[in-house]
Amino acid sequence: MSLTEHIQQHNARYVARFDRSTLALPPARRWAIVACMDARLTVEEVTGIATGDAHIIRNAGGLVTDDAIRSLVISTHLLGTNEFAIIEHTGCGMLTFEDEPVRRQIAERTGADTGDLRLFAFRDLEANLKEQVRRVAESPLLPTGIPVTGYVYAVETGKLRPVVSATTGAANVEREHASIR
Amino acid sequence: MSLTEHIQQHNARYVARFDRSTLALPPARRWAIVACMDARLTVEEVTGIATGDAHIIRNAGGLVTDDAIRSLVISTHLLGTNEFAIIEHTGCGMLTFEDEPVRRQIAERTGADTGDLRLFAFRDLEANLKEQVRRVAESPLLPTGIPVTGYVYAVETGKLRPVVSATTGAANVEREHASIR
Repeated sequence: MSLTEHIQQHNARYVARFDRSTLALPPARRWAIVACMDARLTVEEVTGIATGDAHIIRNAGGLVTDDAIRSLVISTHLLGTNEFAIIEHTGCGMLTFEDEPVRRQIAERTGADTGDLRLFAFRDLEANLKEQVRRVAESPLLPTGIPVTGYVYAVETGKLRPVVSATTGAANVEREHASIR
Repeated sequence: MSLTEHIQQHNARYVARFDRSTLALPPARRWAIVACMDARLTVEEVTGIATGDAHIIRNAGGLVTDDAIRSLVISTHLLGTNEFAIIEHTGCGMLTFEDEPVRRQIAERTGADTGDLRLFAFRDLEANLKEQVRRVAESPLLPTGIPVTGYVYAVETGKLRPVVSATTGAANVEREHASIR
Protein backbone atom coordinates (compact mmCIF):
# COMPACT_ATOMS: atom_id res chain seq x y z
CA MET A 1 0.00 0.00 0.00
CA SER A 2 1.28 3.49 -0.78
CA LEU A 3 1.72 6.13 1.92
CA THR A 4 -1.03 8.25 0.35
CA GLU A 5 -3.50 5.33 0.47
CA HIS A 6 -2.43 4.49 4.01
CA ILE A 7 -2.95 8.08 5.17
CA GLN A 8 -6.34 8.30 3.47
CA GLN A 9 -7.56 5.16 5.26
CA HIS A 10 -6.08 5.83 8.67
CA ASN A 11 -6.71 9.54 8.91
CA ALA A 12 -10.44 8.95 8.43
CA ARG A 13 -10.42 6.85 11.60
CA TYR A 14 -8.49 9.57 13.45
CA VAL A 15 -11.01 12.19 12.36
CA ALA A 16 -13.90 9.97 13.48
CA ARG A 17 -12.64 9.92 17.07
CA PHE A 18 -11.04 13.40 17.07
CA ASP A 19 -11.58 15.34 20.30
CA ARG A 20 -8.67 17.76 20.36
CA SER A 21 -10.13 20.83 18.69
CA THR A 22 -9.70 22.94 21.82
CA LEU A 23 -5.93 22.52 22.18
CA ALA A 24 -4.05 25.82 22.18
CA LEU A 25 -1.09 26.71 19.94
CA PRO A 26 1.52 26.95 22.75
CA PRO A 27 2.46 23.52 24.13
CA ALA A 28 0.45 22.86 27.30
CA ARG A 29 3.46 21.46 29.18
CA ARG A 30 5.95 24.01 27.77
CA TRP A 31 8.46 21.36 26.68
CA ALA A 32 10.47 20.92 23.48
CA ILE A 33 12.24 17.72 22.43
CA VAL A 34 14.89 17.25 19.73
CA ALA A 35 15.12 13.60 18.60
CA CYS A 36 16.33 11.37 15.80
CA MET A 37 14.00 10.65 12.86
CA ASP A 38 14.51 6.88 13.42
CA ALA A 39 11.39 4.82 12.70
CA ARG A 40 11.80 2.82 15.92
CA LEU A 41 11.64 5.90 18.14
CA THR A 42 8.05 7.09 18.53
CA VAL A 43 8.94 10.07 20.67
CA GLU A 44 5.54 10.70 22.23
CA GLU A 45 5.11 7.07 23.32
CA VAL A 46 8.64 6.64 24.60
CA THR A 47 8.43 9.80 26.71
CA GLY A 48 4.72 9.64 27.64
CA ILE A 49 4.03 12.97 25.91
CA ALA A 50 0.37 13.57 25.03
CA THR A 51 -0.81 15.45 21.96
CA GLY A 52 -0.69 19.16 22.79
CA ASP A 53 2.08 18.91 25.38
CA ALA A 54 5.39 19.55 23.60
CA HIS A 55 7.13 20.61 20.43
CA ILE A 56 8.87 17.68 18.76
CA ILE A 57 11.81 18.48 16.47
CA ARG A 58 13.36 15.56 14.58
CA ASN A 59 16.12 15.00 12.04
CA ALA A 60 18.72 12.42 11.06
CA GLY A 61 20.69 11.84 14.26
CA GLY A 62 18.71 14.07 16.61
CA LEU A 63 21.29 16.79 16.03
CA VAL A 64 21.24 20.40 17.17
CA THR A 65 21.74 21.77 13.69
CA ASP A 66 21.17 25.42 12.81
CA ASP A 67 17.67 24.39 11.75
CA ALA A 68 17.02 22.73 15.12
CA ILE A 69 18.18 25.95 16.81
CA ARG A 70 15.77 27.90 14.56
CA SER A 71 12.97 25.65 15.77
CA LEU A 72 13.99 25.97 19.45
CA VAL A 73 14.20 29.75 19.08
CA ILE A 74 10.61 29.86 17.82
CA SER A 75 9.54 27.29 20.41
CA THR A 76 10.86 29.21 23.41
CA HIS A 77 10.81 32.89 22.42
CA LEU A 78 7.42 32.84 20.68
CA LEU A 79 5.63 29.88 22.26
CA GLY A 80 7.03 29.82 25.77
CA THR A 81 8.70 26.41 26.13
CA ASN A 82 11.04 26.33 29.11
CA GLU A 83 12.58 22.84 29.28
CA PHE A 84 14.35 20.87 26.55
CA ALA A 85 15.37 17.25 25.98
CA ILE A 86 17.56 15.75 23.27
CA ILE A 87 17.18 12.08 22.35
CA GLU A 88 19.71 10.04 20.38
CA HIS A 89 19.62 6.23 20.33
CA THR A 90 21.54 2.98 20.10
CA GLY A 91 21.81 1.40 16.66
CA CYS A 92 21.57 4.80 14.97
CA GLY A 93 22.15 4.79 11.22
CA MET A 94 24.46 7.79 11.69
CA LEU A 95 26.94 5.45 13.41
CA THR A 96 27.12 3.15 10.36
CA PHE A 97 28.75 5.32 7.70
CA GLU A 98 31.18 8.16 7.06
CA ASP A 99 30.34 11.32 5.18
CA GLU A 100 32.96 11.23 2.45
CA PRO A 101 32.23 7.83 0.82
CA VAL A 102 28.50 8.53 0.96
CA ARG A 103 28.99 11.95 -0.64
CA ARG A 104 30.82 10.21 -3.50
CA GLN A 105 28.15 7.51 -3.77
CA ILE A 106 25.34 10.09 -3.97
CA ALA A 107 27.26 12.10 -6.56
CA GLU A 108 27.61 8.96 -8.67
CA ARG A 109 23.96 8.00 -8.31
CA THR A 110 22.42 11.41 -8.89
CA GLY A 111 25.01 13.34 -10.86
CA ALA A 112 24.70 16.14 -8.29
CA ASP A 113 27.60 18.15 -6.90
CA THR A 114 27.78 16.87 -3.31
CA GLY A 115 30.90 18.81 -2.35
CA ASP A 116 28.98 21.00 0.12
CA LEU A 117 26.76 18.24 1.52
CA ARG A 118 27.34 17.65 5.23
CA LEU A 119 25.65 14.52 6.58
CA PHE A 120 27.12 14.76 10.12
CA ALA A 121 27.72 11.02 10.63
CA PHE A 122 29.37 10.27 13.98
CA ARG A 123 31.27 7.46 15.67
CA ASP A 124 30.68 7.90 19.40
CA LEU A 125 27.05 8.13 20.49
CA GLU A 126 27.56 9.61 23.97
CA ALA A 127 30.22 12.08 22.83
CA ASN A 128 27.93 13.21 20.03
CA LEU A 129 24.98 13.60 22.42
CA LYS A 130 27.07 15.68 24.82
CA GLU A 131 28.10 17.90 21.92
CA GLN A 132 24.43 18.50 21.04
CA VAL A 133 23.56 19.41 24.64
CA ARG A 134 26.51 21.78 24.66
CA ARG A 135 25.30 23.46 21.45
CA VAL A 136 21.94 24.19 23.04
CA ALA A 137 23.46 25.33 26.31
CA GLU A 138 25.88 27.66 24.56
CA SER A 139 23.56 29.06 21.88
CA PRO A 140 23.49 32.85 22.19
CA LEU A 141 20.02 32.86 20.60
CA LEU A 142 18.23 31.06 23.44
CA PRO A 143 17.13 32.60 26.76
CA THR A 144 19.32 31.76 29.75
CA GLY A 145 18.19 29.33 32.43
CA ILE A 146 16.49 26.64 30.33
CA PRO A 147 17.35 23.11 31.52
CA VAL A 148 18.36 20.68 28.76
CA THR A 149 18.95 16.96 29.25
CA GLY A 150 20.45 14.54 26.73
CA TYR A 151 19.13 10.97 26.67
CA VAL A 152 20.20 7.78 24.95
CA TYR A 153 17.22 5.68 23.90
CA ALA A 154 17.94 1.95 23.76
CA VAL A 155 16.12 0.44 20.77
CA GLU A 156 16.69 -2.99 22.33
CA THR A 157 14.81 -2.29 25.59
CA GLY A 158 12.80 0.92 25.14
CA LYS A 159 14.73 2.60 27.96
CA LEU A 160 15.63 6.29 27.96
CA ARG A 161 18.84 6.89 29.90
CA PRO A 162 19.79 10.46 30.89
CA VAL A 163 23.44 11.06 30.02
CA VAL A 164 24.11 14.75 30.50
CA SER A 165 22.27 17.84 31.70
CA ALA A 166 23.06 21.51 31.31
CA THR A 167 21.36 24.89 31.44
CA THR A 168 21.28 27.46 28.67
CA GLY A 169 23.51 30.46 29.17
CA ALA A 170 25.48 28.80 31.96
CA ALA A 171 28.50 27.37 30.19
CA ASN A 172 30.78 25.00 32.08
CA VAL A 173 28.17 23.75 34.51
CA GLU A 174 27.42 20.70 32.40
CA ARG A 175 26.55 17.81 34.66
CA GLU A 176 27.07 14.19 33.66
CA HIS A 177 24.69 11.56 34.94
CA ALA A 178 25.97 8.37 36.54
CA SER A 179 26.95 5.95 33.81
CA ILE A 180 25.12 3.06 35.43
CA ARG A 181 22.99 1.39 32.79
CA MET B 1 6.30 18.35 37.00
CA SER B 2 9.52 18.79 35.07
CA LEU B 3 10.13 17.07 31.74
CA THR B 4 12.92 14.97 33.27
CA GLU B 5 10.59 13.73 36.04
CA HIS B 6 7.82 13.08 33.53
CA ILE B 7 10.15 11.07 31.28
CA GLN B 8 11.48 9.08 34.21
CA GLN B 9 7.97 8.07 35.28
CA HIS B 10 6.48 7.40 31.87
CA ASN B 11 9.44 5.73 30.22
CA ALA B 12 9.44 3.07 32.96
CA ARG B 13 5.91 2.10 31.89
CA TYR B 14 6.99 2.00 28.24
CA VAL B 15 9.90 -0.27 29.10
CA ALA B 16 7.61 -2.57 31.09
CA ARG B 17 5.46 -3.31 28.05
CA PHE B 18 8.22 -2.98 25.42
CA ASP B 19 8.01 -5.57 22.63
CA ARG B 20 9.81 -3.88 19.75
CA SER B 21 13.36 -5.14 20.16
CA THR B 22 13.28 -6.94 16.81
CA LEU B 23 12.54 -3.89 14.65
CA ALA B 24 15.13 -3.28 11.94
CA LEU B 25 16.97 -0.01 11.30
CA PRO B 26 15.43 0.68 7.86
CA PRO B 27 11.76 1.76 8.10
CA ALA B 28 9.53 -1.28 7.49
CA ARG B 29 7.14 0.66 5.22
CA ARG B 30 9.89 2.67 3.49
CA TRP B 31 8.21 6.01 4.09
CA ALA B 32 9.55 9.39 5.25
CA ILE B 33 7.42 12.27 6.53
CA VAL B 34 8.41 15.92 7.03
CA ALA B 35 6.05 17.69 9.44
CA CYS B 36 5.73 20.72 11.70
CA MET B 37 6.94 20.46 15.32
CA ASP B 38 3.51 21.67 16.53
CA ALA B 39 2.40 20.06 19.79
CA ARG B 40 -1.10 19.37 18.43
CA LEU B 41 0.18 17.27 15.54
CA THR B 42 1.13 13.78 16.74
CA VAL B 43 2.31 12.62 13.34
CA GLU B 44 2.14 8.87 13.93
CA GLU B 45 -1.44 9.01 15.26
CA VAL B 46 -2.71 11.41 12.63
CA THR B 47 -1.31 9.27 9.78
CA GLY B 48 -1.75 5.82 11.36
CA ILE B 49 2.00 5.16 11.24
CA ALA B 50 3.20 2.42 13.60
CA THR B 51 6.56 2.44 15.37
CA GLY B 52 9.13 1.07 12.93
CA ASP B 53 7.29 2.13 9.77
CA ALA B 54 8.64 5.54 8.75
CA HIS B 55 11.22 8.25 9.32
CA ILE B 56 9.67 11.34 10.87
CA ILE B 57 11.45 14.65 10.32
CA ARG B 58 10.04 17.69 12.13
CA ASN B 59 10.87 21.36 12.50
CA ALA B 60 9.16 24.72 12.94
CA GLY B 61 6.75 24.93 10.00
CA GLY B 62 7.37 21.49 8.49
CA LEU B 63 9.78 23.13 6.07
CA VAL B 64 12.10 21.49 3.56
CA THR B 65 15.17 23.24 4.89
CA ASP B 66 18.70 22.15 3.99
CA ASP B 67 18.65 20.09 7.17
CA ALA B 68 15.42 18.36 6.15
CA ILE B 69 17.03 17.57 2.77
CA ARG B 70 20.05 16.15 4.65
CA SER B 71 17.67 13.89 6.58
CA LEU B 72 15.79 12.83 3.43
CA VAL B 73 19.10 12.10 1.66
CA ILE B 74 20.11 9.74 4.48
CA SER B 75 16.59 8.30 4.65
CA THR B 76 16.36 7.37 0.99
CA HIS B 77 19.97 6.76 -0.15
CA LEU B 78 21.10 4.84 2.94
CA LEU B 79 17.87 3.44 4.38
CA GLY B 80 15.75 2.88 1.30
CA THR B 81 12.65 5.04 1.80
CA ASN B 82 10.75 5.53 -1.45
CA GLU B 83 7.71 7.69 -0.71
CA PHE B 84 7.56 11.07 1.06
CA ALA B 85 4.83 13.21 2.64
CA ILE B 86 5.02 16.78 3.92
CA ILE B 87 2.55 17.98 6.56
CA GLU B 88 1.85 21.62 7.42
CA HIS B 89 -1.23 22.65 9.39
CA THR B 90 -3.89 25.27 10.06
CA GLY B 91 -3.25 27.64 12.95
CA CYS B 92 0.52 27.31 12.53
CA GLY B 93 2.63 29.64 14.66
CA MET B 94 4.67 30.44 11.55
CA LEU B 95 1.64 32.30 10.18
CA THR B 96 1.48 34.61 13.21
CA PHE B 97 4.68 36.64 12.96
CA GLU B 98 7.24 38.13 10.59
CA ASP B 99 10.94 37.47 10.73
CA GLU B 100 12.28 41.00 11.10
CA PRO B 101 10.45 42.19 14.25
CA VAL B 102 11.14 38.84 15.95
CA ARG B 103 14.84 39.05 15.03
CA ARG B 104 14.93 42.46 16.73
CA GLN B 105 13.01 41.19 19.75
CA ILE B 106 15.40 38.24 20.22
CA ALA B 107 18.42 40.51 19.82
CA GLU B 108 17.03 42.77 22.55
CA ARG B 109 16.23 39.87 24.88
CA THR B 110 19.45 37.90 24.46
CA GLY B 111 22.00 40.45 23.32
CA ALA B 112 22.86 38.11 20.43
CA ASP B 113 23.56 39.23 16.88
CA THR B 114 20.45 37.97 15.04
CA GLY B 115 21.32 39.50 11.68
CA ASP B 116 21.83 36.06 10.08
CA LEU B 117 18.89 34.35 11.78
CA ARG B 118 16.27 33.17 9.30
CA LEU B 119 13.03 32.01 10.90
CA PHE B 120 11.13 31.40 7.63
CA ALA B 121 7.75 32.72 8.81
CA PHE B 122 5.15 32.63 6.04
CA ARG B 123 1.75 34.18 5.23
CA ASP B 124 0.04 31.71 2.89
CA LEU B 125 -0.19 28.12 4.12
CA GLU B 126 -0.98 26.41 0.82
CA ALA B 127 1.55 28.44 -1.16
CA ASN B 128 4.20 27.62 1.41
CA LEU B 129 3.32 23.91 1.33
CA LYS B 130 3.55 23.84 -2.47
CA GLU B 131 6.96 25.49 -2.24
CA GLN B 132 8.17 22.74 0.15
CA VAL B 133 6.91 19.98 -2.19
CA ARG B 134 8.68 21.71 -5.06
CA ARG B 135 11.94 21.84 -3.08
CA VAL B 136 11.84 18.09 -2.57
CA ALA B 137 10.83 17.39 -6.17
CA GLU B 138 13.60 19.59 -7.53
CA SER B 139 16.40 18.60 -5.16
CA PRO B 140 19.34 17.30 -7.19
CA LEU B 141 20.45 15.23 -4.17
CA LEU B 142 17.46 12.88 -4.14
CA PRO B 143 16.90 9.89 -6.45
CA THR B 144 14.38 10.45 -9.24
CA GLY B 145 10.94 8.88 -9.18
CA ILE B 146 10.02 9.32 -5.50
CA PRO B 147 6.40 10.43 -5.02
CA VAL B 148 5.90 13.32 -2.58
CA THR B 149 2.54 14.63 -1.40
CA GLY B 150 1.90 17.79 0.59
CA TYR B 151 -0.93 17.76 3.15
CA VAL B 152 -2.63 20.41 5.25
CA TYR B 153 -3.59 19.05 8.69
CA ALA B 154 -6.61 20.79 10.20
CA VAL B 155 -6.05 21.20 13.95
CA GLU B 156 -9.79 21.89 14.28
CA THR B 157 -10.95 18.52 12.88
CA GLY B 158 -7.94 16.18 12.73
CA LYS B 159 -8.28 15.89 8.96
CA LEU B 160 -5.29 15.59 6.61
CA ARG B 161 -6.08 17.08 3.22
CA PRO B 162 -3.77 16.38 0.26
CA VAL B 163 -2.99 19.63 -1.53
CA VAL B 164 -0.29 18.88 -4.06
CA SER B 165 1.68 15.88 -5.34
CA ALA B 166 4.87 15.69 -7.34
CA THR B 167 7.66 13.26 -8.13
CA THR B 168 11.36 13.83 -7.54
CA GLY B 169 13.42 14.56 -10.61
CA ALA B 170 10.35 15.26 -12.73
CA ALA B 171 9.99 19.02 -12.55
CA ASN B 172 6.86 20.66 -13.95
CA VAL B 173 4.58 17.67 -13.47
CA GLU B 174 3.36 18.95 -10.14
CA ARG B 175 -0.26 17.96 -9.69
CA GLU B 176 -2.68 19.91 -7.56
CA HIS B 177 -5.43 18.06 -5.74
CA ALA B 178 -9.01 19.23 -5.95
CA SER B 179 -9.50 22.10 -3.56
CA ILE B 180 -12.70 20.63 -2.14
CA ARG B 181 -12.44 20.70 1.61
